[in-house]
Amino acid sequence: ISQPHPLDPAGLQTRAFATRLKHDTPPKAILIVNKHRTKLVIEAIDTLLAYLRQKYPDVRVFHEDRPDIPPGVEIWRPGPDTEKIDLVVTLGGDGTILHASSLFKVGAVPPVLSFSMGTLGFLLPFHIDDYAKALDSAFAGRATVLHRMRLSCRFHDTDGERLEGQSQDWQVMNEIALHRGSSPHLNTIDIFVDGQHLTEAVSDGLIVSTPTGSTAYSLSAGGPIVHPSLSALVLTPICPRSLSFRPLVFPSSSSITLRVSERSRASAGLALDGQTSHVLGPGEAVTVEASKYPIPCINRSSIAGPADINDGEGVSPGKEDDWVRDINNLLQYNATFRSKALLRHSRT
Amino acid sequence: ISQPHPLDPAGLQTRAFATRLKHDTPPKAILIVNKHRTKLVIEAIDTLLAYLRQKYPDVRVFHEDRPDIPPGVEIWRPGPDTEKIDLVVTLGGDGTILHASSLFKVGAVPPVLSFSMGTLGFLLPFHIDDYAKALDSAFAGRATVLHRMRLSCRFHDTDGERLEGQSQDWQVMNEIALHRGSSPHLNTIDIFVDGQHLTEAVSDGLIVSTPTGSTAYSLSAGGPIVHPSLSALVLTPICPRSLSFRPLVFPSSSSITLRVSERSRASAGLALDGQTSHVLGPGEAVTVEASKYPIPCINRSSIAGPADINDGEGVSPGKEDDWVRDINNLLQYNATFRSKALLRHSRT
Amino acid sequence: ISQPHPLDPAGLQTRAFATRLKHDTPPKAILIVNKHRTKLVIEAIDTLLAYLRQKYPDVRVFHEDRPDIPPGVEIWRPGPDTEKIDLVVTLGGDGTILHASSLFKVGAVPPVLSFSMGTLGFLLPFHIDDYAKALDSAFAGRATVLHRMRLSCRFHDTDGERLEGQSQDWQVMNEIALHRGSSPHLNTIDIFVDGQHLTEAVSDGLIVSTPTGSTAYSLSAGGPIVHPSLSALVLTPICPRSLSFRPLVFPSSSSITLRVSERSRASAGLALDGQTSHVLGPGEAVTVEASKYPIPCINRSSIAGPADINDGEGVSPGKEDDWVRDINNLLQYNATFRSKALLRHSRT
Amino acid sequence: ISQPHPLDPAGLQTRAFATRLKHDTPPKAILIVNKHRTKLVIEAIDTLLAYLRQKYPDVRVFHEDRPDIPPGVEIWRPGPDTEKIDLVVTLGGDGTILHASSLFKVGAVPPVLSFSMGTLGFLLPFHIDDYAKALDSAFAGRATVLHRMRLSCRFHDTDGERLEGQSQDWQVMNEIALHRGSSPHLNTIDIFVDGQHLTEAVSDGLIVSTPTGSTAYSLSAGGPIVHPSLSALVLTPICPRSLSFRPLVFPSSSSITLRVSERSRASAGLALDGQTSHVLGPGEAVTVEASKYPIPCINRSSIAGPADINDGEGVSPGKEDDWVRDINNLLQYNATFRSKALLRHSRT
Ligand SMILES: NC(=O)C1=CN([C@@H]2O[C@H](COP(=O)(O)OP(=O)(O)OC[C@H]3O[C@@H](n4cnc5c(N)ncnc54)[C@H](O)[C@@H]3O)[C@@H](O)[C@H]2O)C=CC1
Ligand SMILES: NC(=O)C1=CN([C@@H]2O[C@H](COP(=O)(O)OP(=O)(O)OC[C@H]3O[C@@H](n4cnc5c(N)ncnc54)[C@H](O)[C@@H]3O)[C@@H](O)[C@H]2O)C=CC1
Ligand SMILES: NC(=O)C1=CN([C@@H]2O[C@H](COP(=O)(O)OP(=O)(O)OC[C@H]3O[C@@H](n4cnc5c(N)ncnc54)[C@H](O)[C@@H]3O)[C@@H](O)[C@H]2O)C=CC1
Ligand SMILES: NC(=O)C1=CN([C@@H]2O[C@H](COP(=O)(O)OP(=O)(O)OC[C@H]3O[C@@H](n4cnc5c(N)ncnc54)[C@H](O)[C@@H]3O)[C@@H](O)[C@H]2O)C=CC1
Repeated sequence: ISQPHPLDPAGLQTRAFATRLKHDTPPKAILIVNKHRTKLVIEAIDTLLAYLRQKYPDVRVFHEDRPDIPPGVEIWRPGPDTEKIDLVVTLGGDGTILHASSLFKVGAVPPVLSFSMGTLGFLLPFHIDDYAKALDSAFAGRATVLHRMRLSCRFHDTDGERLEGQSQDWQVMNEIALHRGSSPHLNTIDIFVDGQHLTEAVSDGLIVSTPTGSTAYSLSAGGPIVHPSLSALVLTPICPRSLSFRPLVFPSSSSITLRVSERSRASAGLALDGQTSHVLGPGEAVTVEASKYPIPCINRSSIAGPADINDGEGVSPGKEDDWVRDINNLLQYNATFRSKALLRHSRT
Repeated sequence: ISQPHPLDPAGLQTRAFATRLKHDTPPKAILIVNKHRTKLVIEAIDTLLAYLRQKYPDVRVFHEDRPDIPPGVEIWRPGPDTEKIDLVVTLGGDGTILHASSLFKVGAVPPVLSFSMGTLGFLLPFHIDDYAKALDSAFAGRATVLHRMRLSCRFHDTDGERLEGQSQDWQVMNEIALHRGSSPHLNTIDIFVDGQHLTEAVSDGLIVSTPTGSTAYSLSAGGPIVHPSLSALVLTPICPRSLSFRPLVFPSSSSITLRVSERSRASAGLALDGQTSHVLGPGEAVTVEASKYPIPCINRSSIAGPADINDGEGVSPGKEDDWVRDINNLLQYNATFRSKALLRHSRT
Repeated sequence: ISQPHPLDPAGLQTRAFATRLKHDTPPKAILIVNKHRTKLVIEAIDTLLAYLRQKYPDVRVFHEDRPDIPPGVEIWRPGPDTEKIDLVVTLGGDGTILHASSLFKVGAVPPVLSFSMGTLGFLLPFHIDDYAKALDSAFAGRATVLHRMRLSCRFHDTDGERLEGQSQDWQVMNEIALHRGSSPHLNTIDIFVDGQHLTEAVSDGLIVSTPTGSTAYSLSAGGPIVHPSLSALVLTPICPRSLSFRPLVFPSSSSITLRVSERSRASAGLALDGQTSHVLGPGEAVTVEASKYPIPCINRSSIAGPADINDGEGVSPGKEDDWVRDINNLLQYNATFRSKALLRHSRT
Repeated sequence: ISQPHPLDPAGLQTRAFATRLKHDTPPKAILIVNKHRTKLVIEAIDTLLAYLRQKYPDVRVFHEDRPDIPPGVEIWRPGPDTEKIDLVVTLGGDGTILHASSLFKVGAVPPVLSFSMGTLGFLLPFHIDDYAKALDSAFAGRATVLHRMRLSCRFHDTDGERLEGQSQDWQVMNEIALHRGSSPHLNTIDIFVDGQHLTEAVSDGLIVSTPTGSTAYSLSAGGPIVHPSLSALVLTPICPRSLSFRPLVFPSSSSITLRVSERSRASAGLALDGQTSHVLGPGEAVTVEASKYPIPCINRSSIAGPADINDGEGVSPGKEDDWVRDINNLLQYNATFRSKALLRHSRT
């Protein structure tokens, strides 16, 4: 690991994973993101705010414009002239981070600190009980991040022009999915890679996923699991009418265009990180590329104590890799067939 | 495509694919590699030699030490003090390139020019009839290469020491496969990623493959197809006794260790690019990493005419990407169900 | 094959495949079914009618009630008091037979003679050019049929009562599919087998398919190919959020109930042989069993000449099995990787 | 379940599952089968023998001829003139029943009562602690059996004659597997169904499995799970060099022939229920059919108390179907992704 790799001399892929977050100055503006307002979430926000006001009184705290803004918190609206945010804090499930990503869908995202409310999640490194340690590491410049790749999606009309009302590219964190939705008919989609025609897919739909998204919809559709520190695009078909379709993995330098065929019997509904967006009709297309704007996710090693870092076993990158733990604990990866002792008798 | 990618600013993955081969001087020593000696191959070698002697009389031509060395060709033996080779020419199927790679299994490989004898192959960009054009492009410094990643394999005994008789790492181009072979019992193998325990696999075996190898054994075992210009390691299980195993794709910075469990009922036979090697017993292990020595494969765009090359940036990516053509033509990727006209009547 | 099987002494599964259609009397009423009215179809109907009037002048010919009934053809409407039909003739693609099946969705189906308009299809044994031979075999009592199993579907409300407006069971030929449709959320469905809870599926949907339907939607979702002369139910998940779902095959004596969970985030749209039907909300369910009313499909051996039956190779059941031919020709089953001769040179 | 099915009027498939074992007289000769002689097994045999001698003093007890026959037990050798056995009792894992089946590989098998030594197993309905109840049910004629289908395998030489030394067909309970074993090369096998050529498989090997075997090797190779009360043959390829191979399910009336192609680069080693047998060379073949000799496995409902049995027809199907329980408990079928409460904090 330590020595430069000939195909990756700058160690980019490794660095992506281990980058230490640099703050010239501690965060001055924090955006709190939550999707649902359960009792747990409300209490967690209160606790966070109290801690911030007491320990970091100068920091400004923002929240999306919604009926139920916590007191003393300023309203933030996505847009070109908006307040600059230095740190995003999410409270909730995996969907909350996807939502945070969508708030910054047309440009750069500040570092994201994600707290679970007690439920495990793939994109949730921190338990809410560790809020103080986690915030302190971010303010002290000790946080390390995993730059999770995003995809940039551009929509085209039948003439290859930008689709009306879609003046800006859309960045997604998990995937873009095209699906026949409730149409009874399959859709026919032409797939181009770097401008070259790859194949015509007759199927329920297609997914272009990031490595992060490889454990989401793409997995259910039969795709491989791709480590999030790799930069790659995964193309996974959804119920293709072919025996010989197989998921494909492309380098992040690739550009994938999906164009609904003129002879497609169904149009293709778009879902961006699970959010239903518009519908592509025959001749319309979307071009997907690696985004210039990855999402910097603060990871668990940020709050690893010295004991975790300098034990006899070494400062293993393994220590820091939440991913191995997650695919075992959350996906129950390779759960082998049990032959454990029977606790009860035959009749159970 | 053209602008630098934030996760890959140096454009490494792209460049890997498009690199133009630099010769300060034209090749001075060529190694001809063939596996079988069919009539076609013998004639092709004769033709090649005649051409080289006439057009490039100063070049030295070598061949492996075998009973049937063509006249006027010098013998070459792999090893530390061997003659330096500037260009490898292979004649035969995909297996011939794998064999060429194995001749340079402990270090760097010279650029490889691969000719098919008329049969399509995944690793065979050139038809033998194009020998003159292809050789000329290499001598004129016009050849472009795809640096196909290789894997470096290191074998350990039960104490973690290098396995006896295995003093050097072994580079493979397709994959390393562990298999129970003719043992009736499944083997149990512990998988570690960057030192961290990932899972215990009870199966017929495991494959760690390069992107190049993703269309070889790994594909048959259910793995995804990975574009060869991506640097990644693919881990694919062979008939695992688990419903929840799924192929995994790792960044090329990863180190994967496969250790035969002490309680494995079968040992694990090793196949390196399909060549049966030794057998790993309980407690023995192999560690696989991206190799420092990729294999530079001269690709078809080297002989593209001016008509094919027409923009400032060089050849168009579509033109140059043999891969899309190959997965369609060779793998019959996504062959959709036919509903073409019946040529004959009901009884056919 | 010839001797009775201990688990199937009556040879039911075999007979299902080879049954000779018995007519005490030749067909008196024929129903012509077509979905689309292309020029080809119109001409074919005219030709058929002319032939019938000339050769079998007493037969009555019916057609669904649609604007464009061919002259001299009587109108037929599905229902309890309708005219008895002795033979169904379909003209079109696979969808036309599915449509014919749906016309008899609440009870028995007469034998079906299916003509393709020149396009291959899984359920299309006859080319339209063979209309005379095929009709003659049916009138002469020489036709043999494959009794393709259908599924009987009964819909229940949250109290387990028949769902309102669904007073009769619905028979399907391919499958019943539950799907989230255009809902962004996965649905949660409890699966019961013979009243026993099997599992809770979180997925895009579920398919219960006949062997006939095993080459339709179930195949696209990853299901096995099941020979249509076997009586079985195939349960195939659509994009399940689980690594460990696997298609299941049940005996035709099984009863499968799919109940939308009370905590499902999406309701489940129903598609019966591809026709969108109603939507099942939380607590609602469908119970699927083998139908009492299979669909008797006249097969190709009906028109096999003596030459086909008594050639040197023997009267092989293989001769009569269109299925092997179809999975090879239509599905391109096991298309092996080509290594055929290159016709063009390197640059192609 | 209760009403006759049109495609299965005799209710064969159902009955196969629920058949009550008829003894005109109680068992007079019992064969005890064990593979390993662990302390647990030895003690269990002692307990069983003591119980039998005390309660059923007239019964004769047999054991395979091995060094360590328990005292007072007679030696039994498979063969035509051997002692007739009325009941087989197995002690051990799934492999022990497979071994019992192999002792009767050329003909009928007596009912089998299988005890686990505390470890769950697919073929193990009874926990050893229930030995008394289970034996009593068999002696009292209360035992119910699942007739698990077996496959009959016949070996042919290149002339289609019985292979030398293979004068009798071989019955298997799980599967017959052909595999390249430790040959580096793929083998090429022609597949015939009912005499008709289906396809040529280039692969690591092929499996023909029973429904019972569908949860064994076939499952690992990607096959569907087939309920053991269905009579069917499952054909599953092992690592085929094709994108478009898919498992196939055939009716039990089918005859499948696997013939090693003359141009196969590897011969095919045979494994019958996991036991390595001979090797098939080019031109040699095996024909697989449903066996006349299924294996009657006594199932759990035999010892269900009156509370469990409460209707006229006998035990409730749910109660009696160990299979649903097994695929959930043993295979962890459809283990959904966990989102249970975190027990520990972020750093775990
Ligand atoms: N059949 C399927 O598997 C489908 C999956 N989805 C996925 O749901 C995502 C949207 O998520 P929510 O807004 O939470 O919707 P949701 O509330 O419907 O949840 C979807 C599930 O996916 C999980 N998930 C989300 N991102 C993940 C990731 N990167 N790795 C592993 N698990 C992940 C969530 O924890 C949740 O369990 C989409 O981006 C898509 O990937 C959406 C539709 C169908
Ligand atoms: N079940 C399977 O699919 C098995 C596959 N193999 C593969 O065979 C390779 C050795 O090849 P040979 O020496 O030619 O042995 P071989 O003569 O037995 O041929 C194996 C086949 O794999 C093809 N192949 C090789 N490398 C490939 C690649 N990178 N992409 C696509 N196809 C490729 C060859 O053209 C040939 O058709 C091994 O590296 C392994 O990948 C080896 C054993 C079993
Ligand atoms: N992703 C998928 O594969 C989907 C498949 N379908 C299938 O389409 C069927 C309805 O067919 P159409 O009305 O013709 O709709 P359609 O015109 O949309 O055609 C569906 C395709 O399925 C083929 N097909 C139908 N039954 C088949 C069978 N038993 N075996 C092999 N191929 C078969 C047809 O030839 C046609 O190519 C449904 O019963 C369902 O099985 C429906 C939706 C999605
Ligand atoms: N890659 C794989 O999955 C392989 C599987 N096998 C299977 O092993 C069987 C022989 O078993 P043993 O003599 O016990 O050898 P073994 O001791 O090597 O065990 C094989 C495993 O398969 C399980 N098993 C056996 N029959 C089963 C069934 N019908 N359903 C579910 N699990 C079952 C056993 O409990 C054991 O865990 C063969 O018939 C074959 O099916 C054999 C070789 C490779």
